[in-house]
Amino acid sequence: MRREQRFWGWGEPGAGPRLPDHAATLLRDWLGVSGAVVSAPIAEADVRLREPDVSVTLRAALERAVGAEHVRDDRAIRLLRAAGKSYLDLLAVRAGDCEDAPDVVVAPAGHAQVEAVLRACAEDGAAVIPFGGGTSVVGGVAPERGPFATAVCLDLGRLDAVIDVDVRSRLVRAGAGLRLPELDHALAGHGLRLGHVPQSYEWATVGGCAATRSAGQTSTGFGRFEELVAAVRCATPAGELATLAVPASAAGPDLRALVLGSEGTLGAITELVLRVRPVAEERRYEGWLLRSFGDGCDALRELAQAGLAPDIARLSDAEETRTTLAFAGRRGFERVLRRRAACLLVTGWEGAAADVSRRRAPAARALRSAAALPLGRGAGEAWRATRFAGPHLRDALLDRGVLVETLETAATWSRLGAVRAAVRDALAGALAGTPPAVGCHVSHLYPDGASLYFTVFARQDPRDPAGQWLAAKRAAGDAIAAAGATITHHHAVGRDHAPWLAAEHGPLGLEVLRAAKERCDPAGVMNPGKLLSSTKSFINQPGD
Amino acid sequence: MRREQRFWGWGEPGAGPRLPDHAATLLRDWLGVSGAVVSAPIAEADVRLREPDVSVTLRAALERAVGAEHVRDDRAIRLLRAAGKSYLDLLAVRAGDCEDAPDVVVAPAGHAQVEAVLRACAEDGAAVIPFGGGTSVVGGVAPERGPFATAVCLDLGRLDAVIDVDVRSRLVRAGAGLRLPELDHALAGHGLRLGHVPQSYEWATVGGCAATRSAGQTSTGFGRFEELVAAVRCATPAGELATLAVPASAAGPDLRALVLGSEGTLGAITELVLRVRPVAEERRYEGWLLRSFGDGCDALRELAQAGLAPDIARLSDAEETRTTLAFAGRRGFERVLRRRAACLLVTGWEGAAADVSRRRAPAARALRSAAALPLGRGAGEAWRATRFAGPHLRDALLDRGVLVETLETAATWSRLGAVRAAVRDALAGALAGTPPAVGCHVSHLYPDGASLYFTVFARQDPRDPAGQWLAAKRAAGDAIAAAGATITHHHAVGRDHAPWLAAEHGPLGLEVLRAAKERCDPAGVMNPGKLLSSTKSFINQPGD
Repeated sequence: MRREQRFWGWGEPGAGPRLPDHAATLLRDWLGVSGAVVSAPIAEADVRLREPDVSVTLRAALERAVGAEHVRDDRAIRLLRAAGKSYLDLLAVRAGDCEDAPDVVVAPAGHAQVEAVLRACAEDGAAVIPFGGGTSVVGGVAPERGPFATAVCLDLGRLDAVIDVDVRSRLVRAGAGLRLPELDHALAGHGLRLGHVPQSYEWATVGGCAATRSAGQTSTGFGRFEELVAAVRCATPAGELATLAVPASAAGPDLRALVLGSEGTLGAITELVLRVRPVAEERRYEGWLLRSFGDGCDALRELAQAGLAPDIARLSDAEETRTTLAFAGRRGFERVLRRRAACLLVTGWEGAAADVSRRRAPAARALRSAAALPLGRGAGEAWRATRFAGPHLRDALLDRGVLVETLETAATWSRLGAVRAAVRDALAGALAGTPPAVGCHVSHLYPDGASLYFTVFARQDPRDPAGQWLAAKRAAGDAIAAAGATITHHHAVGRDHAPWLAAEHGPLGLEVLRAAKERCDPAGVMNPGKLLSSTKSFINQPGD
Repeated sequence: MRREQRFWGWGEPGAGPRLPDHAATLLRDWLGVSGAVVSAPIAEADVRLREPDVSVTLRAALERAVGAEHVRDDRAIRLLRAAGKSYLDLLAVRAGDCEDAPDVVVAPAGHAQVEAVLRACAEDGAAVIPFGGGTSVVGGVAPERGPFATAVCLDLGRLDAVIDVDVRSRLVRAGAGLRLPELDHALAGHGLRLGHVPQSYEWATVGGCAATRSAGQTSTGFGRFEELVAAVRCATPAGELATLAVPASAAGPDLRALVLGSEGTLGAITELVLRVRPVAEERRYEGWLLRSFGDGCDALRELAQAGLAPDIARLSDAEETRTTLAFAGRRGFERVLRRRAACLLVTGWEGAAADVSRRRAPAARALRSAAALPLGRGAGEAWRATRFAGPHLRDALLDRGVLVETLETAATWSRLGAVRAAVRDALAGALAGTPPAVGCHVSHLYPDGASLYFTVFARQDPRDPAGQWLAAKRAAGDAIAAAGATITHHHAVGRDHAPWLAAEHGPLGLEVLRAAKERCDPAGVMNPGKLLSSTKSFINQPGD
């Protein structure tokens, strides 16, 4: 039996860290909430769910394609496939709203079965929502039906084979539904690993990472997920779209790049050939304190441009630094934090021991010249130990009536400061009624720029918690687009970012993507309402 | 006045190296040609050229778009825009065949003028052939008319502005028609350079490098051209296709990748935002001798996988090593060459002095452990001094009745040996009547594989020199496709590789590219017969 997350929150019951005891005080001082639990998780029986609507013809075709036992419409599976894991998703599910859950969940076992399912849905006119790890925070797995009556969740979990390992070329061919830890576990027997570590690592699948252009916490050193993909195989209603596993090519436009980031709108990725690396002989994580966010950005820019960037580099601004250390109960740092602008930087190197010391030494020297105060390995390891904690803690914060959500972007170094200021101002303005705490960090470095990741906390508006966040999200997205930054560095588009896609790609750019979709999916059944939604997203509600 | 190459050969008259005196003996011993000049360059007046066919309406529209003085149909400009620089191109031009030269050459001054030209041609129904540096070796600038009577050469040479330099983000926005040396010269004032150095460096434009996915000799260290492109702006008959200048994004599929490699079939690239780097404080090139090609590949694979690859690494097989040293008249190496399998490796590092020594030391140690015999900096500098010589010397070889052409591919490390053997066998078989000398080198390293670059010399068959090469090219292309390698690592597709594109991308892949083209270029005027040619290329002649 494949492991499953809780339908109303993150991870398995009992897994993950809990809020520390002193959190209640912090939340009170900080956001004006009581710190007490005000909302309990919902019971499965209390969730509202429509009767499944699947035609006899479609059900028969699906059962022929994958076998009757892999076509399910019981309450349990429909709830597990009803939503992703954004704040808005969790608000809705916790309020008992799963009305739009998929009518049926179909789990094919390989590429050919996926193609058969897609053909059946295209013929019958049923929406297909590909589902990998289900960790989307942008509505990417929301069971939107578009013009169709029926929503079929295409559960890719059984495409979990490690098909071939080419140790010499450091390539692995794997099924798209394989979860990241499962792949790393299988590769360890060969002394290899993928080393792709998004915060959703515990649940994300390789196919999902490819479909959404995941960055992963190690992107600075190991590359974004798209750089790890040597070849991709995608099943579409019109047939197979597959690229050759070659290290590089100039044979026309790179078709991989059209499939990566297509978010299930062309078809479903079924297999990937991935570039892998040896297991890390050494991991060296450490903390540093920078005098200001600007100073820290300058230091990171210089490292990235000199080819000295660590594999992982995360610079928190002063607000996030204070929050992080306060939640961690790091009283020893209070003195340091009196330097109000002090910013925590975590650096990490992973690899062969000689490689780590060869790369770390000049970078550490450069950081010291930039007046970075070394905090030692404890501070780095503290981050590493809690790097998957965020979404677990979010459930506890939701229990306590806290608005908690993240958003992210990327911009050139020249624009980074202005983008950060614009987004902070937009969030503060939109949430002025419940003054938010907004922290920000840089966590992915490039020679020409970096990502910015914002975490927003506020007191929930109990009358309309969704509307409260929608207003903030809309303001932040508009600020990002106006500043010439990207609407998303690694969360993808899904349903929630679709309104800003035209600002990013221009009208003809969207037309070209639509043309590609029409060729692969003439019936328009693949993941309606995502990416290329021509209808206004729920983010832009009437009255905009 | 913009500098121009000779219409019948490479470079400006008198530029470039000449064949050494001992070359005649070598050619005789080696290929059985006399070594004497048997074919003189053709005079402009002797070339066959049709009268230009441009409708009055189209001419008026073009003149309105760019000004009458930039709409030319004189013999001189038509010859200069009649062909690229492949062996087949030069055979045809040297034989006086420019029948298909463009009817008119139009030189717009900026994005808006390019759009106006494209609109005029789409309305009138005239083929548009974008022309940058004109260095294509795959028929990419061949003035094919498709179904149209008129061929308009879109000369991008006047889009040569350095529009903006963002020193902090190390980005430059430049016009697509800027030549590589012109850009590096302009950037030097800021202490920067692009550092992209294909063999065509002296003439290639940045737009051409983008449209064809150039690799460049420094690709191992600095990245392929597509990795240097932060943003692209493209004029199409349906309007502008432009991407945002951000360091990374997950906002759907990467539209840059659809424009890069589109080879003028969607529209014409007009501007690029390029990632640049500091001018090199130090350059360290050196030579090594490896015991065999297999040993050398193993050593390079280990460097690439350990993150220790030099910025430039070129490993010649034994045949190419012997040829190189013999042409260079390096008698001192005779003893070494008696080791018949000995293979020359050139490594190069460029950057800040500390950076070069930091990166070179562990790589040099690894090479010594792989039993590489150091030949010192002289051997490396000798390669660097002659790295643009090939196409110049080709003209002298053509004068002497030598067939000389190159082709290239890339494959995973596991397949590299088999691909090399298959291509060599195919070339030897197809040219059995005039036994060829085939040299090969690896010149672009990736963790998962490498490029293979073949140089073929043979005695020309004077009865049908084009047919002689076509048979060899067809055999080599088929061998590459059958071995699962890419039909081109950096020469692009143009007209000559189009027959193998379906093997690379699959039928649906080609359909998707066609769908994108139809959206941008509904009239089908953009570079007909290239990339997506549905008609059989001239490479695949009747009887295949």
